[in-house]
Amino acid sequence: MLQAIKANIIHAEKSGFVSRENAYLVMEDGVIQGVFDTLPAQYQNAALEDYGDAILTPAFADMHLHAPQYPMMGLGGDLQLIDWLNDYAFPTEAMFADTDFARRVYRQLAQELIKRGTTRVCMFSSLHTDATLILMEELEKAGVTGLVGKVNMDRNSGKSLQESTGESIRETLRWLDACGNFRLVKPILTPRFTPACTDELMAALGKLARERDLPVQSHLSENDNEIAWVKELHPDCAQYWQTYAKYGLWKQGTLMAHCVHSDARERAAMREAGVFMVHCPDSNVNIRSGIAPVRRALQEGVQVVMGTDIAGGVQLNMADALTMAIRMSKQRWIESQGQDDFLRFHEAFYLATTAGAAYFGVPSGFRAGERLHAQILTDALLCPTLQPLTLPERLERLICAADPHSLHAVYSDGVQRL
Amino acid sequence: MLQAIKANIIHAEKSGFVSRENAYLVMEDGVIQGVFDTLPAQYQNAALEDYGDAILTPAFADMHLHAPQYPMMGLGGDLQLIDWLNDYAFPTEAMFADTDFARRVYRQLAQELIKRGTTRVCMFSSLHTDATLILMEELEKAGVTGLVGKVNMDRNSGKSLQESTGESIRETLRWLDACGNFRLVKPILTPRFTPACTDELMAALGKLARERDLPVQSHLSENDNEIAWVKELHPDCAQYWQTYAKYGLWKQGTLMAHCVHSDARERAAMREAGVFMVHCPDSNVNIRSGIAPVRRALQEGVQVVMGTDIAGGVQLNMADALTMAIRMSKQRWIESQGQDDFLRFHEAFYLATTAGAAYFGVPSGFRAGERLHAQILTDALLCPTLQPLTLPERLERLICAADPHSLHAVYSDGVQRL
Repeated sequence: MLQAIKANIIHAEKSGFVSRENAYLVMEDGVIQGVFDTLPAQYQNAALEDYGDAILTPAFADMHLHAPQYPMMGLGGDLQLIDWLNDYAFPTEAMFADTDFARRVYRQLAQELIKRGTTRVCMFSSLHTDATLILMEELEKAGVTGLVGKVNMDRNSGKSLQESTGESIRETLRWLDACGNFRLVKPILTPRFTPACTDELMAALGKLARERDLPVQSHLSENDNEIAWVKELHPDCAQYWQTYAKYGLWKQGTLMAHCVHSDARERAAMREAGVFMVHCPDSNVNIRSGIAPVRRALQEGVQVVMGTDIAGGVQLNMADALTMAIRMSKQRWIESQGQDDFLRFHEAFYLATTAGAAYFGVPSGFRAGERLHAQILTDALLCPTLQPLTLPERLERLICAADPHSLHAVYSDGVQRL
Repeated sequence: MLQAIKANIIHAEKSGFVSRENAYLVMEDGVIQGVFDTLPAQYQNAALEDYGDAILTPAFADMHLHAPQYPMMGLGGDLQLIDWLNDYAFPTEAMFADTDFARRVYRQLAQELIKRGTTRVCMFSSLHTDATLILMEELEKAGVTGLVGKVNMDRNSGKSLQESTGESIRETLRWLDACGNFRLVKPILTPRFTPACTDELMAALGKLARERDLPVQSHLSENDNEIAWVKELHPDCAQYWQTYAKYGLWKQGTLMAHCVHSDARERAAMREAGVFMVHCPDSNVNIRSGIAPVRRALQEGVQVVMGTDIAGGVQLNMADALTMAIRMSKQRWIESQGQDDFLRFHEAFYLATTAGAAYFGVPSGFRAGERLHAQILTDALLCPTLQPLTLPERLERLICAADPHSLHAVYSDGVQRL
């Protein structure tokens, strides 16, 4: 089916915005054919969706969030990481042994992601294989694409949320076998974090990653107490990242959430291996971890993407997450008396959209041959201005100052989902 | 007219939440008669509004915002205070010479405040008398109550937004004369800030404040460059606050926005005079002023209230402003390595509701004899939980993690407005 969408089209490159006013984006069966200033003759028969003065821009990629923490989003804000995990996160995740509950929560989460313009995710499930498969089903049904991981955790997680090493490996294999039929979501190996995984489990996951060429996601250098704990557990590793590298889990495309306390050496190790930093600014301030050195990482050539980290973060909307990234980098600017420059709007928007898509191998902008991931935003309901605004100004106002109702439509994988 | 509202009723005191489940709040002509566990016999004929499992809690008080900056909300985020004023804020405010534009913007602003549960404000208008009266009309129509100030500014504000000293005084008198008919909104004297007001103007406003017993609002110690500038302009004043005190503007009930860099001495001067600190956390990080010492001010006995500071802040929703206050105080905790304790949820909610109402002389909670200012929140659309939550937990989730659609109804001055 041939479709044409007319709108003001804008996306962020690393260096700034690229926009085309009143342009036509043509799709055939969800695959972009091109973007044109006037509709070419061969597409005159396309079904035209004219969004008038609205803005079409890439959909969001939320590259780190914990699906089973969604029910506790907004709770436990007085605690820091380790207490927060033990008192809130682990008991909540334990509830996902109940597959009916999992179905209700995950159906709602998947729909809420689409309602906020998020079409790509890298997500942690819980350790439960069945609930993880339910999560993948519900994401697919709602049209959310990306990677989902059954969590591996065989130590230090309390009674109600722990697997034996053998169970963890067996369940991972059972889960991987059942993943074959999903089209939009694929598996990613997910050791929770070093303190929750025995050496034997880490070794088994590293072997699996190599043998089946599977991607890996985990947590890195989020909190001082956590880092000290990792050092106790692995006295042979000078730095946290080496506890993953030791087992073959530190490799091209590995996603490491947080990196709040990653120093120059750890960041260099990321750059050299092709490991991605997932910046989760709201979570980092909410559970009092600190402000990640995002600007420095970018300057050094580390690949950075962004995540909400539900429910360490409490903003499911990536528009809120990216404005928080700007806020916290401004605070870093203040603290460093201007030494660490702050993120400009186009950079934060780039991290939340283009950079996330790039993780999945998708080039920037709306290139022919790619399936459309886009959101349509309208500022018709915002406060009037006397002078007309540029497209980047309109986008900034929509993302930074508008309530969610500015989102008019969402396309994921070439299909309109909202 | 006799009305009864059934809901879960909760409000914040300084020390924590006070709640009553499934209670009845009875009003007669908008005036609270009492809160009861069962409906007393004499009120059995009241018109009953049963909100079921929803929560009734005080409406928000936004104690510092600039109405004529609403059209630029979300723009200019790369600049710091003085450049931001000159490049964005002053040119935008200058547009309010156009009374038709003012009417459109202010009508929308007033309605949007109610839609976000804000029923009390202390607001800056621009220097334009006619637009200020329009703002007051529109607030009154929408049901927003509180104080509004025609801004006084007779120097250092560029060509398009400056009055002569004589004009400023004459227009202030004309404005005050025209304010007599408003019922819900009253005037407050509003010298913009020391750099924008000549000594002669400050003296005239101080005289007016005394003679007519009018309250005062302004800005204090927001930004380092601003403070240095004030020092140049008033070499006789050791501290910023003294430039207001010198002219009789530093008095019981004076509202001073920001106070980011107010040290112990300046805070002591606030406490001693009964001057209120208006904390505007989103603005303070957005235009890179810093983090105000709110926790210290509270410990020292300074009276603190909260504001969005639209459009230095870009969150019109006080729920967002108060969660930002928690975030930034957590960041202060991180920076001080735990020396400065962070704001807990009940404290931030107290500042955004009860403390603001107290500025207007209203006691905490829902006392008999007061007109009802309340918002009804429902978490029916939020993610299900397996275990039931307490009322304070439900409120925390609604305020910290829910989108604006959790607001079900709003009462202002005893009248349902949403």
